[in-house]
Formats: sequence, C-alpha cells, structure tokens
Amino acid sequence: MKLITDVARQAGITEEDLELYGKYKAKLSRDLWEKVADRPDGKLVLVTAMNPNPAGVGKTLTTIGLSQALNRIGKKTFAALREPSLGPCLGMKGGATGSGKAEILPADEINLHFTGDLHAITAAHNLLAAMIDNHLYHGNARRIDPKKIVWKRAMDMNDRALRQIVVGLGDGNGPLREDGFLITPASEIMAILCLSEQMDDLRERLGRIIIGYDQDGQPVTPRDIHAVDAMCVLLKDALKPNLVQTTEGTPVIVHGGPFANIAHGCSSVIGTKLALKLADYVVTEAGFGADLGAEKFFDIKCRSAGLTPSAAVLVITVKALKYNGGIGAADLHRENLAALKNGFANVQRHVENLRNFGVPTVVAVNRFATDTPAELDAVLAMCRELGVDAALSTVWKEGGKGGIELAEAVVRAAEQPSSFAFLYEDRLSPREKIETIVIKLYRGSAVTFSGAALKTLEKADGMGLSRLPVCMAKTPYSFTDQPDRLGAPTDFTIHVSDIRISAGAGFLVVLTGSLLTMPGLPKKPAAEALRVDEHGRVTGLA
Amino acid sequence: MKLITDVARQAGITEEDLELYGKYKAKLSRDLWEKVADRPDGKLVLVTAMNPNPAGVGKTLTTIGLSQALNRIGKKTFAALREPSLGPCLGMKGGATGSGKAEILPADEINLHFTGDLHAITAAHNLLAAMIDNHLYHGNARRIDPKKIVWKRAMDMNDRALRQIVVGLGDGNGPLREDGFLITPASEIMAILCLSEQMDDLRERLGRIIIGYDQDGQPVTPRDIHAVDAMCVLLKDALKPNLVQTTEGTPVIVHGGPFANIAHGCSSVIGTKLALKLADYVVTEAGFGADLGAEKFFDIKCRSAGLTPSAAVLVITVKALKYNGGIGAADLHRENLAALKNGFANVQRHVENLRNFGVPTVVAVNRFATDTPAELDAVLAMCRELGVDAALSTVWKEGGKGGIELAEAVVRAAEQPSSFAFLYEDRLSPREKIETIVIKLYRGSAVTFSGAALKTLEKADGMGLSRLPVCMAKTPYSFTDQPDRLGAPTDFTIHVSDIRISAGAGFLVVLTGSLLTMPGLPKKPAAEALRVDEHGRVTGLA
Repeated sequence: MKLITDVARQAGITEEDLELYGKYKAKLSRDLWEKVADRPDGKLVLVTAMNPNPAGVGKTLTTIGLSQALNRIGKKTFAALREPSLGPCLGMKGGATGSGKAEILPADEINLHFTGDLHAITAAHNLLAAMIDNHLYHGNARRIDPKKIVWKRAMDMNDRALRQIVVGLGDGNGPLREDGFLITPASEIMAILCLSEQMDDLRERLGRIIIGYDQDGQPVTPRDIHAVDAMCVLLKDALKPNLVQTTEGTPVIVHGGPFANIAHGCSSVIGTKLALKLADYVVTEAGFGADLGAEKFFDIKCRSAGLTPSAAVLVITVKALKYNGGIGAADLHRENLAALKNGFANVQRHVENLRNFGVPTVVAVNRFATDTPAELDAVLAMCRELGVDAALSTVWKEGGKGGIELAEAVVRAAEQPSSFAFLYEDRLSPREKIETIVIKLYRGSAVTFSGAALKTLEKADGMGLSRLPVCMAKTPYSFTDQPDRLGAPTDFTIHVSDIRISAGAGFLVVLTGSLLTMPGLPKKPAAEALRVDEHGRVTGLA
Repeated sequence: MKLITDVARQAGITEEDLELYGKYKAKLSRDLWEKVADRPDGKLVLVTAMNPNPAGVGKTLTTIGLSQALNRIGKKTFAALREPSLGPCLGMKGGATGSGKAEILPADEINLHFTGDLHAITAAHNLLAAMIDNHLYHGNARRIDPKKIVWKRAMDMNDRALRQIVVGLGDGNGPLREDGFLITPASEIMAILCLSEQMDDLRERLGRIIIGYDQDGQPVTPRDIHAVDAMCVLLKDALKPNLVQTTEGTPVIVHGGPFANIAHGCSSVIGTKLALKLADYVVTEAGFGADLGAEKFFDIKCRSAGLTPSAAVLVITVKALKYNGGIGAADLHRENLAALKNGFANVQRHVENLRNFGVPTVVAVNRFATDTPAELDAVLAMCRELGVDAALSTVWKEGGKGGIELAEAVVRAAEQPSSFAFLYEDRLSPREKIETIVIKLYRGSAVTFSGAALKTLEKADGMGLSRLPVCMAKTPYSFTDQPDRLGAPTDFTIHVSDIRISAGAGFLVVLTGSLLTMPGLPKKPAAEALRVDEHGRVTGLA
C-alpha cells in the first residue's frame, strides 16, 4: 500500500487539501473543489450488470479492475465507489471492497468504520427522530399527528428485532407509539448526502424531508422542528469525499452508500464530480442489474447532477447466463451451452436498453476458473452477433493486466459521440414515468397501482412533487417483480404496492412487492469469523 | 492551533506513532507504548470537586488550565480527559471541552464525532444485542431465557422514547420482548474500554460480560454466542488514545468517557498510563464530586491499573459554597458570607476524605466575576484554618497564567511523600465495602439493602465475584442519597435499591434511588442553536 499522501500527489492533490484518517485514508477538502471546478470533465464510465445469479457477477471487482487497466493504458483514471455498510459486513456477505487483485485498500478499515460517514448519517437520522418525539413530549406545538409519523430510527446493523418496535413505554417516556429501525443505507439522509452538491444543497434537501403529517394532514419537515442545521453540523465531514487506493495504487473515491432499492444506489455526486475534474476517466458503478441500477443512475443521479455518461460496461458471467437460462445454483459450475444461449436473452435486453439511453456500451465477461473454453467462445460469439464490443476480464486473478482488453474497448466506446438522453421527461406524471420504465425498459405490458399508491401519488401531486423522478424498488433478479422470472420475460404486469415520498432526496419511491429495509443476521453471522490480533490486524472479513 | 504533528513532536512523539485524523487530532499507536513502557512514570494529579451547584464548578476547565500552568512553570505536563458524548452536547449542556482560555481544541470536532470512539462502542454494543436476539431467533441453542436478558441496546443520543421499548413485533422478527436503549457512555463496553490495558485485556473483559441468564439460571456471556472477537474488531481503533491540544498547545489525551454513576467516570487507563510515560505531570479528572468521583478513581481505576496518585486538587467555587450553605440557584450571585461559611463544611469533609486516602490535597478556588473580594478572602481564610493549601484560579480568563499559583501548590503537594491507600481491601464482602464507603467517606450511619440487592449480592457471590470493587451510583449533589441534603450531613441512611453486576468492567454497581441511563432532550435542545457554514465552521456548541 502507498501512503495516501503519495496516491494523492500522483493524482495532483496536495497535502493541504487532504484530511488524513491514518496513513491510508483521507477526506478531500471542500477547497479542492474550488481549485479544480473550472477544469474540463473527464469521461464518466458506468459499470452495471445483467440480472445476476445469487452469488453476484463481480461488478465492484470489475469497476476496480477496469480503473486499474485504464491507468495501465495511459488514461489517468479514478474509480468512484460506494461505502460499505457495517451491517452486511457483519452479517451475510463479508466486505464490499472487491477482491483478489482488484481490491480497494485498506479493505478492513473501509469495511468497518472507515472515516465515520455512516456513523454520522446514523447520528443525524436519530437526532431528527429524537427531536420529533421530544417535540411531542414537550407539548407538540406543531400539532404533529403521532399516528402519521413516517420518520423511523436508524442503525448500521443487521437487526431484525428492531424492524417493528413500540417506543415510549414507562412513565414519562411517551408518547407511546409504533416505530421501527432502518439500516442506515436505507435512510433518506444517505440518499440526500449522495445527491447533494454542497452544504447549501444538503441543507435545502434535509429541510424538505417529510417526517410525518400534522392534524390537518399537512406535511411536517425537519425545518418545522428546528433540526436542519444540527443535522448539517453532524454531516459536515461526511459530506467530504474519501480517498483510498486500489491494490495497484489507483486512486479511488469511496463516498456514500445508499440502498439500491428504496434509494438510487449510487456513490455520491460530490465524489463523482470531483473525480471527473481530477482524471481523464472515472469508472463508477450502480446497484443491482442494469434494469434498476443503470436506470436510476441515468434518470436520478445524472439528471440531478447534470452528468453525461460516456460509456457503459455491462458485466456478465457464464454462471449468471446459465442461471438466467434456467439452471439452478447447484449446477452452475457444469458446462451447459444450451442454457448459456438461453440466458443470453437477458444480456441482449440490457444491451438494447443501454443503447436506448444513447450510451455506447461494452460487455465485460468476468471470467471464473470453472468457465470452459467452449462457454467463453460461445459468449463472445453471441456478443459479436449482437454487434456489441465484448472483452474477457480476468482482473480478479491478474489485476489491471487482466482488464487491458476491456479498457481498450471502453476507450473506443467512450470516444464515440454520446447521445445520452433520459428515459422520461420531468413533465410526465409519476404514473406515466412508471409506465414508461415498465413498458420501454422492463418490457412489461402493464402496471397496476394499489389504492394506497394512488392515494400517495395524489398527495404528492398536491404538494407539487409530481415532477420528481421515480425510484423503482423491485427485485434485482428479474425484469419483472417476481425474482424467479429470469431471462427476458415479456407480457407481465408490474404491481405497484405503495409509493413513498422522499422529498428531500428528490424522488418518489415506487414499491413493488414487500420491502425489507432492515436485514437480519443469518444463523452463523460473518461476525463470528472475525479476529483481530495484538497489532490491530483484522482477519475474517471475506 | 498548532498542527497535531507539532504538538506531538514537542511531547516526544514521532509522526510514525501518530494516526492522524485531520490536521489537529491523532490517535497514538500501540507501538508507542512498547517504546516508552520502560520509562519512569510522571506524577499523577487528580482534579476533583466539592458537591456542586447545578451549574457545576469548572472541573474540566481547571484540569485544562492547571495542565497549562504546570507547563508554564517548567513541568512537562499532559492533561488526560474524558471524551464528550454526543447526546448531552445536542441536549442540555453543549460541549464538554472546557471554555475561555482553558479549552481543548478543536472543540467542535471533539464534541461531535471526534475520532469515532463512541460510534465504535455503540456499534460493538449493538452487534452484541443483535447477536443475542439472532441466537434466540435461530433456535436458541444456548437456552437463553428471553425474560432474563440484561443486555440492552445503545445509542449516543438523548432519546427518552427509547428508554423502554418492545422489540420483535411483526411476523418473523421475534422473539417479542421488552428492551431499552442506554446512552453509549452508560454501556458496560465503555467502562471496559476505559479499564483495559491492551487488546488481550479488552478481549478477556468483553468475554466476561453477563448478557443474561439461561433456563438454568446460569450466566450467559458474549463468549457463549461467539461475539467477543467481532466486538474487539469493532473496538480496535477506539482502544487507541486520542491526542489533541489545549488553547496553549499543551498536549491532551482525550480518551474514553464512561458514565460517572453506573460506571467509574474516569478517562482511559491506557491513556493515563501512556501520558505518565511521556510527561512529568499528568492532570486528570473524575466525574461528579469527590464523594463519588475521587472514590471511584482511587478504588476502581487506580486499583485496577496499579496507579498511585501524587496529589489531588479539590475544585470549589464561591457559588457552590453558598449553594451548600442553603442558598437557592437564583440568589447565588449575591454576596452572602454566612452561607459561604455554612457551606464550607462540605469542603472540609472532602478535604478530610482525600487526606484519608493518603493523597496530598490542594484546593482550587475557581473564580467567577460575581465573586466579591470579601467572599474570596473568607474562603482562603477558611482553607488556611483547615490547614489545606489553597489557590485562586482564573484560568477561564487568563489561561495557564491564571493557574500559576495553583500549579505551584500542586507541585509542592506532589513532591510530598504519598501514602496512598484504598478505602477498602478486596477481601471484604461487597456489603462491607459499601458500608465502609457510606460510614467512613459519606459519614452516614447505616446502609439498608432491598431484597433485590441482597439477592444479586448472593448471586454475585455464587459466581465468585465478591472480591470486585463496588461502583456507587448516587446523586452527585449530596453525600447522602437525597439531592437536597447539602453541606455536610450526618446521621443518615443510604438505601441500596439494587445491585448490577458489571463482570466485564469488573465492579458491582450499587444503585441508590432510581437511575436514568438514557437522558431526554429539554424543551429547547442545544441542537437547535447549532450552525455550520459553507466552510465547515461550526457555531453554537457552547
């Protein structure tokens, strides 16, 4: 690992603009933005994916490896990634920092407390919650309806016992009411932080959060209970992007980690914009497959921030193809060319969708040891047939070297003229926006809305929020709202069960099916395998 | 403000042993301890106080100012202080970093997230809680009795709504049970961190925590559910002391902030021991008045860590004297020599107590603008009569310069031979220990125990825990368990309402009266006054 001061210097950042967190992590000062704001932007490359098998396709890995490969072929490149959440690290999946020779470092610290951003967001979230109950306790001057409070509490932990709780029991601790905890990445504050351009913007957005409704049915905001500025104080450092490095010393901005279902699932706008000023290429990722992640990256993040992507990379794997071709998890390691071809329909649809956004697209085949030569040949042949540039990627095993071919394809794509356009215009109604996504992108035939969803849309319209983009919360495994309808289904209906208003983040969350915003721990949590020695070295964070 | 690297260098710490958190905060590496462990210790000075008026007597202020003054008279000095908790900073009292010209810097950052120690403790606490409920959820192999779980959840926030809650509502989120949140400084993990000597010690102590009892009534520990190592991982950086500076550039270790009622209320052993290796003098403080704070500092912290204090400073104020002399808060600014003399009985008793510990004692009169010359003369005269060295302190207004006389008195005291001895021996039973404290130190006449308290003592004895010291949880305003019995009362009975076993921290908590471990916010929380500007400058943290 290089000292982060050295990584920064090579990226053109002086020590004056670094706030060091130990020797290998730093925050980038607000002043740095002022210094570079007038520079031209580098090219923005989005890494997204086909619908995955449950083990995932290696999107973060590919993002990191591609950034390393671009540096190797002479393009000054940053990666821009999301911050891991502590909950899942201690629960099911271990860390979220790539792996093999395409990892971000120091992995254990990034996966654990990092520079404290998630803790700051948790604190700001819970300060607001405490101030709401305190407002009720001390007389409720704003006449908040205790039954219509929608702002829950937050914790960066997988803790199912806190999903649904009753607070305020006992004498003088009231009011007694139902409540619950979200995991911190599901907090609207996380989404807000990731979409904010600077402190003033953050303050405005926090002030617009709807925490509940008053006795007249009017929305109540943090501004009404004087909580906004204190939340800004708690978030002042979290708003600054974090700089770390890859295993090859490539600079990486790791900043913000919003949920990919009830939020947009992309790293921060501040971090992306800063990286674009510092590099020729910025490689970033979005959550889940391209049906959710890329759509929200384009229609929410790029729209909000005025970003224009130059290229998209669709990560696919032989296993995910076979999974989409109907093979169960237990048999994915066996060669099966028929299933592979069957599953390619999923890739084809994602490529078409990305092209419909006007973004030049490259397919990255993230290679596994179990892939057979015949399978790999077949995949590449199908890509050729589709007319999409494709490259094998072996960045897990070889680092940037294993992504050179991919990097060259990405540069060719990014040098094409971009004709990027949003899928829908602001002026459409939320219903029309949702229908556009379902019919044009998912290729469904219809959308149904629950009574509750329609009522909320009406309420949002009454508040002047109909121009907001929509944020789809849907299973990541399928174009439909059923996780088992794989491949490229058609003729399906998407059922909108509810709508939530994220007025601060600036989108309407469209729920399809039930939604879990607080995970639980598995029978044997990842936490059980963690160890630290006398020198502070951590093992067991897979 | 000097760069923290410069403060460190002047204190003999090289940059290699610093982990920087921005330009003005750093953690001290474990390696530093290895390098200095063989050096002789400096002199340890405890700053404690008389029973205060509700506005407080300025103990932290005096600790900081005295450390500055000692440096001015040529003694190489560190201060060792507790970390503020976010909850109270946002609630009632604003910051906890001293004030005026005796402040620690950067005050806003120390008061807010600092280096993340409290967040790490919160995370470790809640991981354990989540793993307990998860153990029950996945079959409860250890046969934990859900009704006998004593481990609650924690948050560093003043939030009365979370004091008593029900968790596990809804389908598949169970078990349904009563629970509650503590504020983080009240977590046993905070007490453990503050008493641990290094990682192995931390691991041992965490493993001994009693989280509840099984169906056979046997204690269950974090070890039983494989949580200990993951907690150590989350706490690995929190275990490292933090270095900051005073307004005069004096080095300060700010590390650990345990509650002063259900815990011992002193900064970390690691920090204190390290400071003693780096300085001629280390000035530290304990929570509340000397009846609670100094007693626990001596009998818990010094006993656990093998520390020998060289001197004690008893901070008093004219207002606190008049308050103890029977004057209400509204009239404390008026000269009242009779009340002053009346209240001096409180000081006299504290001085006698400190002397009984064998610790040379100095009185610091923390001067306020409203004190009259006649009052100050009277106080000094009474101290002379008592035969105790006393000095006026004006460190708020003048910084170290205003504490020179006090520093000289402290040096005289610390150069006397110390005959420090604990108030009670390990071999006494917990009942005898409590009676010794009540009768010898508080000067009460008797102790009564509730049935629950006696039952817990029996249980603790059965677990071999009777040798542990006791940690008194009592009102800080009086020697008695009644906050309105001021001055130097005699002939009173202390009522022990309950006992809690902190087997990990290593003490038995003795509750007298009711106990609040989660504060609430006032009608107008301090948070409402906070502001931050575009450059990240914070105002309003009083």
